[in-house]
Amino acid sequence: MLESDYPDQVCSIARSLEVVGERWTLLILREVFVGSRRFEEFIDNLGVTRTVLTNRLRKLVEHGLLERRRYQQRPDRYEYLPTAKVEGLFPVLAQLLRWGDEHYPHPAGPPRRLLHRGCGGDLELRYHCRRCDATPGLDEVETQVNPALDMAPG
Amino acid sequence: MLESDYPDQVCSIARSLEVVGERWTLLILREVFVGSRRFEEFIDNLGVTRTVLTNRLRKLVEHGLLERRRYQQRPDRYEYLPTAKVEGLFPVLAQLLRWGDEHYPHPAGPPRRLLHRGCGGDLELRYHCRRCDATPGLDEVETQVNPALDMAPG
Repeated sequence: MLESDYPDQVCSIARSLEVVGERWTLLILREVFVGSRRFEEFIDNLGVTRTVLTNRLRKLVEHGLLERRRYQQRPDRYEYLPTAKVEGLFPVLAQLLRWGDEHYPHPAGPPRRLLHRGCGGDLELRYHCRRCDATPGLDEVETQVNPALDMAPG
Repeated sequence: MLESDYPDQVCSIARSLEVVGERWTLLILREVFVGSRRFEEFIDNLGVTRTVLTNRLRKLVEHGLLERRRYQQRPDRYEYLPTAKVEGLFPVLAQLLRWGDEHYPHPAGPPRRLLHRGCGGDLELRYHCRRCDATPGLDEVETQVNPALDMAPG
């Protein structure tokens, strides 16, 4: 069971951050997003300590975001494969990438581009309405609290 | 100047997380996203300590994500307004909301819905190609490292 980082929050964002909000976790998932699978790849690409990486990977496996699979025996070695659950977080990473590129540009250009395979066009994220199929701008986005939760804290 | 949390990373995701990756920061931005503007609103809704909130708000103002404006004199009181820069992070929050709703459902239903104003349909985020206007699925998303950065660490 998770410790709760934000115990007073009845909020799905807070709940998500309890799973992926720790330091390094989103960067580990970035590595998965761009194709890394093995412990040593994460170490080489991230500069994270082995202890922290071990803890973060264990938690991600426990929560079903990664699947641990042995790819070698004597010595046993494991790789970490993305699940369907973790794929729902890739748009979070994609948007952090675009936002960083836009507001903190690197002098040599974007370090990594997100492209439409085959087409080669740059990808961005847009809101999409499931009912009317529109792609509304931010001024058409509204949030609504669930009235059943009015009595709940947060 | 920011301390660098991920100094070896030439990566726009890492850069973004240096600005918004600290504990509480994304929840403070969630409050902004849903309409909170004032210090006491953040305190009431988040349960964060005043010291942490003060530090996080100061950093968000320094980085241009919020604009601090006095709305009352004697005593002086300030509100925090979203800038265009911070609006680029709202899709990050929107996706964390959807992901949390999907994988950690609340027994009373989603605590907060994200809706298309006027239409009332649920919003989701989709990849959109700037070149061909398609909305590709994850299997059509690819990432490409900037070759000019081949010599760089990370």
